[in-house]
Amino acid sequence: MTAVTEVQSTIGTLRREVCALHAELTRYQLVVWTAGNVSARVPGHDLLVIKPSGVSYDDLTPENMVVCDLEGRVVDGQHAPSSDTEAQAYVYREMPQVGGVVHTHSTYATAWAARAEPVPCVLTMGADEFGGEIPVGPFAVIGDDSIGRGIVDTLRGSRSPAVLMQNHGVFSIGPTARAAVKAAVMCEDVARTVHVSRQLGAPVPISQPQVDALFDRYQNVYGQR
Amino acid sequence: MTAVTEVQSTIGTLRREVCALHAELTRYQLVVWTAGNVSARVPGHDLLVIKPSGVSYDDLTPENMVVCDLEGRVVDGQHAPSSDTEAQAYVYREMPQVGGVVHTHSTYATAWAARAEPVPCVLTMGADEFGGEIPVGPFAVIGDDSIGRGIVDTLRGSRSPAVLMQNHGVFSIGPTARAAVKAAVMCEDVARTVHVSRQLGAPVPISQPQVDALFDRYQNVYGQR
Amino acid sequence: MTAVTEVQSTIGTLRREVCALHAELTRYQLVVWTAGNVSARVPGHDLLVIKPSGVSYDDLTPENMVVCDLEGRVVDGQHAPSSDTEAQAYVYREMPQVGGVVHTHSTYATAWAARAEPVPCVLTMGADEFGGEIPVGPFAVIGDDSIGRGIVDTLRGSRSPAVLMQNHGVFSIGPTARAAVKAAVMCEDVARTVHVSRQLGAPVPISQPQVDALFDRYQNVYGQR
Amino acid sequence: MTAVTEVQSTIGTLRREVCALHAELTRYQLVVWTAGNVSARVPGHDLLVIKPSGVSYDDLTPENMVVCDLEGRVVDGQHAPSSDTEAQAYVYREMPQVGGVVHTHSTYATAWAARAEPVPCVLTMGADEFGGEIPVGPFAVIGDDSIGRGIVDTLRGSRSPAVLMQNHGVFSIGPTARAAVKAAVMCEDVARTVHVSRQLGAPVPISQPQVDALFDRYQNVYGQR
Repeated sequence: MTAVTEVQSTIGTLRREVCALHAELTRYQLVVWTAGNVSARVPGHDLLVIKPSGVSYDDLTPENMVVCDLEGRVVDGQHAPSSDTEAQAYVYREMPQVGGVVHTHSTYATAWAARAEPVPCVLTMGADEFGGEIPVGPFAVIGDDSIGRGIVDTLRGSRSPAVLMQNHGVFSIGPTARAAVKAAVMCEDVARTVHVSRQLGAPVPISQPQVDALFDRYQNVYGQR
Repeated sequence: MTAVTEVQSTIGTLRREVCALHAELTRYQLVVWTAGNVSARVPGHDLLVIKPSGVSYDDLTPENMVVCDLEGRVVDGQHAPSSDTEAQAYVYREMPQVGGVVHTHSTYATAWAARAEPVPCVLTMGADEFGGEIPVGPFAVIGDDSIGRGIVDTLRGSRSPAVLMQNHGVFSIGPTARAAVKAAVMCEDVARTVHVSRQLGAPVPISQPQVDALFDRYQNVYGQR
Repeated sequence: MTAVTEVQSTIGTLRREVCALHAELTRYQLVVWTAGNVSARVPGHDLLVIKPSGVSYDDLTPENMVVCDLEGRVVDGQHAPSSDTEAQAYVYREMPQVGGVVHTHSTYATAWAARAEPVPCVLTMGADEFGGEIPVGPFAVIGDDSIGRGIVDTLRGSRSPAVLMQNHGVFSIGPTARAAVKAAVMCEDVARTVHVSRQLGAPVPISQPQVDALFDRYQNVYGQR
Repeated sequence: MTAVTEVQSTIGTLRREVCALHAELTRYQLVVWTAGNVSARVPGHDLLVIKPSGVSYDDLTPENMVVCDLEGRVVDGQHAPSSDTEAQAYVYREMPQVGGVVHTHSTYATAWAARAEPVPCVLTMGADEFGGEIPVGPFAVIGDDSIGRGIVDTLRGSRSPAVLMQNHGVFSIGPTARAAVKAAVMCEDVARTVHVSRQLGAPVPISQPQVDALFDRYQNVYGQR
């Protein structure tokens, strides 16, 4: 295979994968209407694959996914890309280890974000997945780099793969798009359970050494090797 | 095509569209049993297409949708139209820019309506879609123009495409029936998220200039051009 | 048709109808596992058709529905009838206008029942369907007539077709099994919306004359004639 | 049949049953992503059948279930077993009457667990299924016997088939895997209803003799004989 056909083949695979992963956002009710999206980096290229803007989840196909460069400009696609493309492109530029980004306004996580309050680590699942609290990023308006910068500035200093952007919603990252989707699912699950727990009293804290031990084990032992 | 076959063709299209859009009300759990409906204006004619009264969502077909004039009288249809037809006809008479109307008793929006409390604008999604708070309309009883008047009087002075009718439920409008359904979906999503956020404290307000900037951008930039 | 084949034909129809209506209980998430049931009176006969006890909703067929007399004794069926059969048989004996009975432990209605607190009438939907508050019946243990008596004593003095049995769950009635299922669905919807509304403050009351007007119109005008 | 083909046949049946029962965990939304699992004891052998670790529910097949001994070591299977295998193996070693174990992080039950607060018995369903409150087990970290010991120490002194492990989630047991799944479903349902009830006030207690009578009847009379 030439380098050109190889990148085309990779992009074809990512178009199918990114398209299919949106079904996890609807399955777990993290999104309504068209309000949420998944993107993936094209490994080894300054490119990303992302959902088209304002298109219903039922109407997504591998073909209508949009390929952009890491400035958010369309490289291949008939549709305008997600209005979150600039923010996600910024993340890919600044965080080379990131292979996938997800954005949702999932209810419970966004409810914490509206209060600018991080989700405390009071569940073993929170320790496993987020290594501590789920942090809050700044209020930032769409249209320039400020959302991207807010995401990167918050996640660089955290073990968490998810950030609650104030008054806005969730951005999550991962080494792959699938890992970023998992982080978005787990973020909502933890945000919901801790919310429900707090409604009737104070959850018991987990000590920092316990959080560290849980996080370490989960990163290194869980799942198939 | 003659003018007669043209309007028949338009009505046929709207029957299919209005029928199909009810599936979005059930998908997002905005309605139970038969308690909610969608209507569309027949452009250029003093007619509307609406759900039949008391018929299950499973049993809706393009054929059993009802065509009424803008006084709510049946023009074509075997069934009685929705008991909300008078209210919706009033909206079409008074607001010529409206092409679709939706009515639901979706849980969280109706919960705010029962307290006669508008949903404050503390989410970027609220600023995007509603341009501020989601307003409350008066208590009004079915059977005359008072619901229609309450909807129109409230929405005329607002950027919001949705109104919470006190002790009752939601009416939403849009340039098309699909846009009105989107407004109903987003209304419930915003009402739910702000409710959940308020349960554990006070959400951070978004300043009016920021709300204005978000609303303006969303109306003019989002989606496919 | 002879009288014998006629009642057999009626019972066959009711077996199919009662079986099918359980799908509405699962659709609206009013039940989990096997905890809820529908029954229908066989018109003109001292018989009822009811769900078998402890059988999963997926495994229900018209054939495994159980026919009992109005003392709750099995007349036709391979399975033991629902453990609620005695209570429902009591209702059919004492309330001749009742053609269907439904029992659920739906979450929000049961939450009010656990506090022995009626659901106040602060929604037009509550006025339409229940004609006022949804009442609470006594704490009663299974195994004799006390549940049936509690249902009948409470509903006889009420316009409501549903009763919240203290610490237990919902029983609803109707002229048909389908109407009783609708009452169970609407009971949970109203109980949930009023619960959510009360979480953040006091809902606005609806005056008794307004409740009466709404109830009267809904009973006489709504739906297909 | 030889003893060898007999145990192989039993294991084949249990692989299918354990695999299929995971669909109940997703149906009742007790789990997200891969966070929950079912296991079954192989009767008469020191073996168990359990979900593979980190594999999506959509991808489960009878073939990828894992057979382990009661020390948690893989005996047959291509995949690593659930990371909860050690805890569940401990339960099978210590409680010979247990034929199935389930683990979830279902929202409401886990919310009580995060506050280390048992779910009080204020519903007849709670008395029927749990014979009293749903108890809390200790905080315990994964990786040794401490979770298993916490489960066994708590359930040995209780009529409840479910335990809320502090800051963690639910473990439930039963004579069969299906019974353990039922206990997990009922645990979440009771935890949710009591939570909702408590949000607006104090549920009415059920006296201990009434709890005892309900529990006794339910264990001995309910369902098909």
